[in-house]
Amino acid sequence: MARAAFDLEAVIRRRGFIWRSFEIYGGTAGLYDYGPLGTALRNNIISVWRRHFVHQEGFAEIDTPNLTPHEVFLASGHLEKFNDLMLECPSCRAVFKADGFFEEFYPDIAHEIVVDAMTPDELSEFVTERGILCSTCENPFKPAYEFNLMFRTNLGREKTAYLHPETAQGIFVNFQNLYSYHREKLPFGAVQVGKGFRNEISPRQGVIRMREFNMAEAEVFVDPEVNGYPGFEAIRDTEFVLLDQFGAFHSLTAGEAVDESIICHKALAYFMTRTQEFLLEIGIDPTRLRFRQHQKDEMAHYAEDCWDAEIQMIINERESWIECVGIANRSCFDLEQHMEATGQDLRAFRLFDEPVEQEVERVKPNLPLIGRTFRQNAGAVKEYLGSLELPLPDTIEITIDGIVQPIPPEMYSIEKTLEKVSGVRFVPGVIEPSFGVDRIFYAVLQHSYGVGKQREGADDDAYNLLRLVPGIAPVKAAIFPLFNRDGMIDLARTLTQDLIDGGIATAYDDSGSIGKRYARMDEIGTPYCITIDHQSIEDGTATIRDRDTTGQARIGIDEVSVFVRDLLSGVRSFPDLTPL
Amino acid sequence: MARAAFDLEAVIRRRGFIWRSFEIYGGTAGLYDYGPLGTALRNNIISVWRRHFVHQEGFAEIDTPNLTPHEVFLASGHLEKFNDLMLECPSCRAVFKADGFFEEFYPDIAHEIVVDAMTPDELSEFVTERGILCSTCENPFKPAYEFNLMFRTNLGREKTAYLHPETAQGIFVNFQNLYSYHREKLPFGAVQVGKGFRNEISPRQGVIRMREFNMAEAEVFVDPEVNGYPGFEAIRDTEFVLLDQFGAFHSLTAGEAVDESIICHKALAYFMTRTQEFLLEIGIDPTRLRFRQHQKDEMAHYAEDCWDAEIQMIINERESWIECVGIANRSCFDLEQHMEATGQDLRAFRLFDEPVEQEVERVKPNLPLIGRTFRQNAGAVKEYLGSLELPLPDTIEITIDGIVQPIPPEMYSIEKTLEKVSGVRFVPGVIEPSFGVDRIFYAVLQHSYGVGKQREGADDDAYNLLRLVPGIAPVKAAIFPLFNRDGMIDLARTLTQDLIDGGIATAYDDSGSIGKRYARMDEIGTPYCITIDHQSIEDGTATIRDRDTTGQARIGIDEVSVFVRDLLSGVRSFPDLTPL
Repeated sequence: MARAAFDLEAVIRRRGFIWRSFEIYGGTAGLYDYGPLGTALRNNIISVWRRHFVHQEGFAEIDTPNLTPHEVFLASGHLEKFNDLMLECPSCRAVFKADGFFEEFYPDIAHEIVVDAMTPDELSEFVTERGILCSTCENPFKPAYEFNLMFRTNLGREKTAYLHPETAQGIFVNFQNLYSYHREKLPFGAVQVGKGFRNEISPRQGVIRMREFNMAEAEVFVDPEVNGYPGFEAIRDTEFVLLDQFGAFHSLTAGEAVDESIICHKALAYFMTRTQEFLLEIGIDPTRLRFRQHQKDEMAHYAEDCWDAEIQMIINERESWIECVGIANRSCFDLEQHMEATGQDLRAFRLFDEPVEQEVERVKPNLPLIGRTFRQNAGAVKEYLGSLELPLPDTIEITIDGIVQPIPPEMYSIEKTLEKVSGVRFVPGVIEPSFGVDRIFYAVLQHSYGVGKQREGADDDAYNLLRLVPGIAPVKAAIFPLFNRDGMIDLARTLTQDLIDGGIATAYDDSGSIGKRYARMDEIGTPYCITIDHQSIEDGTATIRDRDTTGQARIGIDEVSVFVRDLLSGVRSFPDLTPL
Repeated sequence: MARAAFDLEAVIRRRGFIWRSFEIYGGTAGLYDYGPLGTALRNNIISVWRRHFVHQEGFAEIDTPNLTPHEVFLASGHLEKFNDLMLECPSCRAVFKADGFFEEFYPDIAHEIVVDAMTPDELSEFVTERGILCSTCENPFKPAYEFNLMFRTNLGREKTAYLHPETAQGIFVNFQNLYSYHREKLPFGAVQVGKGFRNEISPRQGVIRMREFNMAEAEVFVDPEVNGYPGFEAIRDTEFVLLDQFGAFHSLTAGEAVDESIICHKALAYFMTRTQEFLLEIGIDPTRLRFRQHQKDEMAHYAEDCWDAEIQMIINERESWIECVGIANRSCFDLEQHMEATGQDLRAFRLFDEPVEQEVERVKPNLPLIGRTFRQNAGAVKEYLGSLELPLPDTIEITIDGIVQPIPPEMYSIEKTLEKVSGVRFVPGVIEPSFGVDRIFYAVLQHSYGVGKQREGADDDAYNLLRLVPGIAPVKAAIFPLFNRDGMIDLARTLTQDLIDGGIATAYDDSGSIGKRYARMDEIGTPYCITIDHQSIEDGTATIRDRDTTGQARIGIDEVSVFVRDLLSGVRSFPDLTPL
């Protein structure tokens, strides 16, 4: 396993999936480039994600800026709470993220404490008590401190802004627009596909911990008094593996998990199921996927409950379960925070089944007194008083003909009346499935990777084989002219262009033996290779070879485009073809 | 015209194309959100762009971080040169971008000077000489100064980084990787679709001048000694409108423009043509498109020549020609700068047609002396001397068995010999078509927008009609049940889901009169509306209506998906259908 992952790393760099960013400048920790094949693969994964979470769910995709003004993160709690606890050595100046420090140098202690739940003082005390020293120079640390993970910059010359650590806030601050776009009906979802930024201090886990990363998030606004979700019954029987907050494993259906109160909200269970469907479709190994519930003290500051889709993969040569998707119940937290900060009404309206009689307080004008005092303006004063919301301010004034005039308390009273009320305004809850695209991308590569046996004249003993699901493969087809003669090259080039014009990502390769060319394509997961040979010139046919079985068939050159499309869409499968 | 644009603005906000960012916090200048329809339309425009500039050109798409370390922009010249000249009033603290200030308050002077070409001192002198005062408080300005437009932040705690103002540098620093990916053959192109960031001081032109914007750039690496481009002959006869650097208009073909040396490089002419093809395909009005050559003193610091695709549109209620695409010859500038900064070899190799005899300088070891001195290590010393590149450093040392030993000058000489040389290494030139996606998006909306006459029972007198090219329309089809009875709703919902499952963006609407529903869809550019009526229940047919002609036809419900797909792909056109 570890060996396979190691070879995969070489393929990833050499073939242009992932490169270290700014490598000619020595590289920059936590930043990675997607090369040509990586970008295509990532974009294909995102397309599948959009099919699931935009088109099938009917969610609205929006795109809001990475740059976000200070006030937003003050309200959202990120300025206060989105911190890492740091340990710094005053002697050798080494700086560690506290949780990473324990995991690396004190694995036993790492299991004993939850660093995220500690204050700096608590951590300092713990470190002193246990006599924990700097791993580099063995001197005592200075007091632990918090480091905010957001990148800070200025808008214009003076306004403080941050790069958003999640795309979610750009959706929350648009609640009114989105609610109106959805004609004021819940539930509805909005998604963003974009970048997140976290200023990790010393990131050392490759694309698993990036300072700038790709994320795809959905924020689903629900009525918090309804424990249900429209699609839930349809997925009730889907099975998954759960690891609950108490450390117990369960292998059961979504329906059972909800019935047994292991998952507390049907919407959570629904999106966990949908997440699993998506991950399996792009090639994640179902035996290396589980959903782990956060413990109460590891939850993000905004979350009421959270289940992570964890995928088993090899990181730094160790098998690890890595959080790739977080499916959180953010409750009403974010909308309430932004309401309080802005004074804007970010509520939805719940219509009662039938109007309900309620005691309502109203401002009742003292009409005779108002008439005597304001005469021809009495109507305006009456109307103004009727428009005021309760509770009233201490002094009430009205501007008539440019003159501000007080309306003294004896001119009105507060009366309680019974009225029919048709519904009530409330702050929606939010269910958030949030996908770490880079981690998923990397898991897909690891789960698709294998070392094939040597075949078809490939030179090397080790034979890299990437069994990517055809739908997400960066290159779908490769066209090879067998020799550089008899018009094979022209035929092959024309066919390549035809496939490209038909929207199929197609490579052309005329260099080296056919075995070498197959090996090059197997290594990057190209599912179908088509060879133009002597017979092609004579009868207009070509061979098509299947990556996974190495089975071959002969088909008409003018049929290749339709065959490949049918193979990709699953209408046709390779064994249906007449083997050679 | 101005009225139409004004109504369009209302549509853009109300229907969810573009919203002001962080509006509940009072909005943030220069930042805008793409709402659901805007995101879909923008993504569709980008898909067409990818078809042209990734798939058809065979360019490699990569994705590099927005966060870029200081050294990169030091080398690229952006730290020194990517500035705006500012005028600031010490009395009232008003701050102006100098060029914008002249355009707004001194339009005559704006035509007299090129602010971009002035130093701060020159500008200060000019302002004093002409007695130009602050437009707000009529006091003299303090000395003009430069303001760097890049957003600055820190990577980790101390390393300075910037948000990239163009995606191009992420491509240049990857030249070696890309050259190797393309098996060391020129020309090749690499593209990025992503964000650019410019910290504009007081942006006031909506999506035309954003602080965070969408861009799509291609960097095409060419041999600077070849004035040609592979696809040039195929586009030789394409016509376009040029406005050259001397202010002269030309309406001619790409071939003529190159033959008459109006456009100096065939690759520039090729990409101008391809840019025009792309813009026309997405619905830009050809009579409002031109290519304007930069004057020598307005060029970016890296450019040797540049032609902008300018599109005429209404900005701040004025008709303006707006730069939407820049097609620049960046020459070898960027690669040379990064070579110098890093010491890395960012050159390509040009194979001569035949090997050439050249006088070559070589290090010739003095073998007898080396043998006497180094004995059993003489071979290593000889090999080491042979590996050295000229010119030699002042002192030469070799480490043998961990001991550093000098190799004195008498042990070698520099000899000139005649050798056959197969080729030469050189720094490639770069041709860059760089697309401002937001501006193009906005131009598409303006050029597609019209006020239709009232039709089909729409309530309003003014009737907003968006004649978007069907291929980029955010919603392709809308399904309406005529009434809420007789199973019409079920039929309509099932049909909607069928189309969505078939990958067609489809809306469902059962609210209000059919006329109102048509109007809602016309306003957002939905090309095809399908109504399920009484007859649908009886014979399984539905009406399909064409947005632009309001023509209707009746087709089988089970054919709708194929019809819409054929209409979108252009296989079928609406007049072919039997009208009702």
